Amino acid sequence: MSSSVLISEVGPRDGLQSIASVMPTAAKRRWLDALHAAGLREIEVGSFVPARLLPQMADVAEIVAHALTLPGLRVLALVPNVRGAEAAITAGAHKISLPISASEAHSLANVRKTPEAMVEELRAVAALRRERAPQMGVEVGLSTAFGCTLAGRVDEDAVLRLAVACAEAGADEVGLSDTAGMANPAQVRRLFTRLRAELGSRAGAAHLHNTRGLGLANCLAAFDVGVRTFDASLGGLGGCPYAPGASGNVVTEDLVFMFEAMGVDTGIDIHQLLAARTPLREGLPGEAVYGMLAEAGLPKGFQ
Amino acid sequence: MSSSVLISEVGPRDGLQSIASVMPTAAKRRWLDALHAAGLREIEVGSFVPARLLPQMADVAEIVAHALTLPGLRVLALVPNVRGAEAAITAGAHKISLPISASEAHSLANVRKTPEAMVEELRAVAALRRERAPQMGVEVGLSTAFGCTLAGRVDEDAVLRLAVACAEAGADEVGLSDTAGMANPAQVRRLFTRLRAELGSRAGAAHLHNTRGLGLANCLAAFDVGVRTFDASLGGLGGCPYAPGASGNVVTEDLVFMFEAMGVDTGIDIHQLLAARTPLREGLPGEAVYGMLAEAGLPKGFQ
Repeated sequence: MSSSVLISEVGPRDGLQSIASVMPTAAKRRWLDALHAAGLREIEVGSFVPARLLPQMADVAEIVAHALTLPGLRVLALVPNVRGAEAAITAGAHKISLPISASEAHSLANVRKTPEAMVEELRAVAALRRERAPQMGVEVGLSTAFGCTLAGRVDEDAVLRLAVACAEAGADEVGLSDTAGMANPAQVRRLFTRLRAELGSRAGAAHLHNTRGLGLANCLAAFDVGVRTFDASLGGLGGCPYAPGASGNVVTEDLVFMFEAMGVDTGIDIHQLLAARTPLREGLPGEAVYGMLAEAGLPKGFQ
Repeated sequence: MSSSVLISEVGPRDGLQSIASVMPTAAKRRWLDALHAAGLREIEVGSFVPARLLPQMADVAEIVAHALTLPGLRVLALVPNVRGAEAAITAGAHKISLPISASEAHSLANVRKTPEAMVEELRAVAALRRERAPQMGVEVGLSTAFGCTLAGRVDEDAVLRLAVACAEAGADEVGLSDTAGMANPAQVRRLFTRLRAELGSRAGAAHLHNTRGLGLANCLAAFDVGVRTFDASLGGLGGCPYAPGASGNVVTEDLVFMFEAMGVDTGIDIHQLLAARTPLREGLPGEAVYGMLAEAGLPKGFQ
């Protein structure tokens, strides 16, 4: 198995849309520049959703345009539906991501559609892609794949069936998301092993949260069974990891440190990655920014 | 491999001796009672060190006496030398633990002795045990086994040689401690695999820190290669895990949650374990108490 991983930074989308403050467009550009300079090669830069629903994302087309100027960067955007996919294609995103919830209760609460209806939406997005942007990637992240704050346990067979349905509906990759921070390492190994058995190379990223402190242990578990793409958020942006109901994204700096310390190549310069916290802080004054590595510093003798 | 683990609570020793405040004796008793009620079956209850050096431990003999009244509890105490071992034997501890540093720089700074001189101290302790308390256990924790804040990297061959020397000098078990929070999962797997190859059933506990956020990932890594005893500290007591130079013990509650969620039996009631935070807080007003599980709560549908 390869000893390199792709860290997909989701802070500019998942992080920024989870907080009330709006980062100014110029600050977003500076932050993206710093993330790119640190070596990140895939960034989810925003969501194509109506600005009245998410004012934090009102400048998404402009941000995609800026991100496209950064050499070697794969520019990813979230879209909830066909209309969002049309806008992402127009903006020129390299890849789009559709969130589909494995929990029906969560899906209905979140997008007022069943998971099955979302698979139909995906099918329409895939048709649009074939017609208008065949070079663009389409990925799905299966949210609440490890448990749901509304429904509790989520049936693993149902998660796998949904993943297969998404691949059949046209997704290039299907990943699993621990939206509610309920996953444990045994479950992560089990589900990703099954996902890879079903989808092969179309098994996608691990999007894991640190809500209950297990974020890095779960990433390690996913790595152990062959996952090589990991979502993470600089400074853990996307909700206070200590507050009930918080999203608690895995902290990019801590995840990169874990892999690099293990000898697994991330392609990221950890000093420059820590430096990318400065434009984040400057763009969101007063917002909490997390990270154990940033607090403790690199260990003596590291690399 | 067995799917149960022993969680060895070190907060009453490692935690309390790392902070400036002194927990009153009656509060220590209440806290021990709560830990025992939660199902903990091994607790390091204190250090036999001169009270002028560590006033937090002045009542250690009294605390050992109380702990001995708790049914089924293995009462562990730290001793730095033969004099401490004599006092622990007099008090009736079931088991003593000697810290021996793998880093010469750390050893000299900490106890003004080389690691080799500490092995001689251990030999004297083992002789005393044979003579006065053959039923008492003697374990060694090799501190700075994964790196040292003074020396940086610590040679792995030297760690293994020291472990073998400790076993030959009479230790029943030799564990490895990540004193400076510098370990990574690949290193944890490598070192514990080698330790078990050298010492077999005398390979001891994993004492891992969360200084850089990798505490639970490192525990998982140790579990994967067969380690079944884990030190942890309730509320992460033993220094703020966010402050440079902090000890950052793995949080007992979070570790127990990880194992129980994975289906690995700890014998601990997690609700009662969370309740044991109350006497800890009451005994140390104003002291920071950590833990991600305590903040986020158990996930819906857990157990």
